[in-house]
Amino acid sequence: MKISPLAPAQFPDLPVIAGVTFASAAAGVKYQNRTDVMLAIAAPGSAVAGVFTRSATRSAPVLDCQAKLGGDPSGAAAILVNSGNSNAFTGKMGVASVTALTQAVADLTAVPVGRVFTASTGVIGEPLPHDRIIAKLADLHKGQTEAAIKDAARAIMTTDTFPKGASASVTVGGKTVQIAGIAKGSGMIAPDMATMLVYIFTDALIGQKALQALVSRHNDQTFNCITVDSDTSTSDSLLAVATGASGVDVTGNADFAAALHGVMLDLAHQVVRDGEGASKFVTVAVTGAADDADARKVAMAIANSPLVKTAIAGQDANWGRIVMAVGKSGAQADRDRLSIRFGDITVAENGWRAPDYSEAATSAYMKNPELVIGVDLGLGSGSSTVWTCDLTHGYIDINADYRS
Amino acid sequence: MKISPLAPAQFPDLPVIAGVTFASAAAGVKYQNRTDVMLAIAAPGSAVAGVFTRSATRSAPVLDCQAKLGGDPSGAAAILVNSGNSNAFTGKMGVASVTALTQAVADLTAVPVGRVFTASTGVIGEPLPHDRIIAKLADLHKGQTEAAIKDAARAIMTTDTFPKGASASVTVGGKTVQIAGIAKGSGMIAPDMATMLVYIFTDALIGQKALQALVSRHNDQTFNCITVDSDTSTSDSLLAVATGASGVDVTGNADFAAALHGVMLDLAHQVVRDGEGASKFVTVAVTGAADDADARKVAMAIANSPLVKTAIAGQDANWGRIVMAVGKSGAQADRDRLSIRFGDITVAENGWRAPDYSEAATSAYMKNPELVIGVDLGLGSGSSTVWTCDLTHGYIDINADYRS
Repeated sequence: MKISPLAPAQFPDLPVIAGVTFASAAAGVKYQNRTDVMLAIAAPGSAVAGVFTRSATRSAPVLDCQAKLGGDPSGAAAILVNSGNSNAFTGKMGVASVTALTQAVADLTAVPVGRVFTASTGVIGEPLPHDRIIAKLADLHKGQTEAAIKDAARAIMTTDTFPKGASASVTVGGKTVQIAGIAKGSGMIAPDMATMLVYIFTDALIGQKALQALVSRHNDQTFNCITVDSDTSTSDSLLAVATGASGVDVTGNADFAAALHGVMLDLAHQVVRDGEGASKFVTVAVTGAADDADARKVAMAIANSPLVKTAIAGQDANWGRIVMAVGKSGAQADRDRLSIRFGDITVAENGWRAPDYSEAATSAYMKNPELVIGVDLGLGSGSSTVWTCDLTHGYIDINADYRS
Repeated sequence: MKISPLAPAQFPDLPVIAGVTFASAAAGVKYQNRTDVMLAIAAPGSAVAGVFTRSATRSAPVLDCQAKLGGDPSGAAAILVNSGNSNAFTGKMGVASVTALTQAVADLTAVPVGRVFTASTGVIGEPLPHDRIIAKLADLHKGQTEAAIKDAARAIMTTDTFPKGASASVTVGGKTVQIAGIAKGSGMIAPDMATMLVYIFTDALIGQKALQALVSRHNDQTFNCITVDSDTSTSDSLLAVATGASGVDVTGNADFAAALHGVMLDLAHQVVRDGEGASKFVTVAVTGAADDADARKVAMAIANSPLVKTAIAGQDANWGRIVMAVGKSGAQADRDRLSIRFGDITVAENGWRAPDYSEAATSAYMKNPELVIGVDLGLGSGSSTVWTCDLTHGYIDINADYRS
């Protein structure tokens, strides 16, 4: 598959996170000739936090992870992820697959079964051939190295056209703390809690509850602020693992919180940049709403509108469709106070087209691969920013014939 | 433009409605070489009811119609509609255009200005060149005939590929009452109150309040149950006109109510059949929900899901995406009670793929141009049926380069 034109130039150099090792393998769950399983193992005492899809039909691995979070943190922890099959809507067999996989990891690695977290991503409703994964566990265990995070990012891809990674380092009390994360996601992207599959590792020292609070808070401003197609996955999972190996306590540290936010936002943006068929990366920034919730309604109505997204694909400065999306959003809006900007160009204000509107200038702006749509409702101080991509023939091509 | 493959074989023979006349003309509002304005005039005493978009950015004509409904019914009534420009988000100039048009009709026809209803459909945010319409009013007035309803249906089209009409006749107390309706609509279809432009005429005798109650009730089960692209228009308007010329009082008559419902449903289905780029007409029938509202949430989540709609376009029996849509809908759902049918084929039940699922049989079914997706939530007696179409390359083609 052709790499998204919005992809970063290269996968970043991710720092080693002391206390975490990785390995990946080709288990042939569905895809051939590529890796499709990754196993990460974190040192005893690591704090593990997570956020997950709110879907009412969420998968067996998601339910298992949710039950395990916040348990006894004294043992080591493991994360086992496969692509090619989501183990969602697989009934009792799905639960049995999770039990078999987590027990097999525990037997092999001495990680307590209550600390073995799994995720599966791919087709919904097919039984997971977990024996194929179990057959690779010994190799995955033997092959653990600190440096293999990029291979892990590749192993969890489905329709992704590039692996996604991001990192940050923070100095706290003169000592350095490292954060590294990977993600997968391209379609079925409209997170309602967490999104897609995201794994973030840090050597910071922080308790489970404090880490969970940070992750939940940042999630609401990062992964919950992106949408590719308004469809919410049954498998969305984010896990953050803090090994404490740096010995640096970051509890309550604002710099660490900001760095973690940056890594999450970077990964969230990369998911949008790999949106199925995407040719434009679009920031929708809404201000002046009655409150933040209204601003988010407007931003998401714009970001999810097929008519807005196809106009952007066609490089058409069709600001009337922004008006439409504001109108349908359900948020409080006053036509005559609304203003709309494409980049720095004010296209509409005071309930009508801006007096110095230039079709030529606006059309030229629409040719950029990265666009900013600004909407000010003129009512209050509520604001929200979300990120999305356009809707192109590529999206139809991918989804009219891929059983995902 | 190629006519939708889902179009009816021909425009129906609509009955003459005693007390209503029509004419259409080419005013050159935007389109060239076609009619783009229609004027209908109804006899004095006609009851006029209507439902309109709930959009917060609804157009000047919508606001004017809403203000006029329920006024003094003693005079004649007029409906003036143009295509090519929606007069939405046109600020004070938009209001001035409505005033100019309604006053010009009143001056020419002796219809009280408070009974002149207008609608405009097409591009948002451009000033309406209302002088071009006013220049045609004398011709439109002189040309009024009872039989010209089909030409009126053509004049109000925008991206529609065929004109839409439907009719019914009902016998009440041994006498016949006629109903005839026309509609336009193809994209920006996700009604939240009424939808698109719909005009229904009857010679029945019925008061304004009784007619309004009927129209509002039926609207909720017809036009409010269709979606093409989840985008709600700024111009959606439905007007129903009862001239009373038959002398048959239908107040409280169940047969008349059913016939009116049938005409509205027929027109609603025709809008879906002309959905931009549509190749499949899809009925989504949800049963077993906790309540009707939950059933509707699930039905609309399925009908609006880009992943479901692209799978249908690809004739892919991808029922996993139905599971996804149920999960994201926000309705109460229990994975293990859910069952899914494509036509008569049960594809999933008891939280997993049906035991006798046949990929070949299901794939064969997906090749039909008309599909029924049945979902039973297994929780209660709530139900909802909605209608939609698939999402194809045609939708992208139309909307990536049409400034509508």
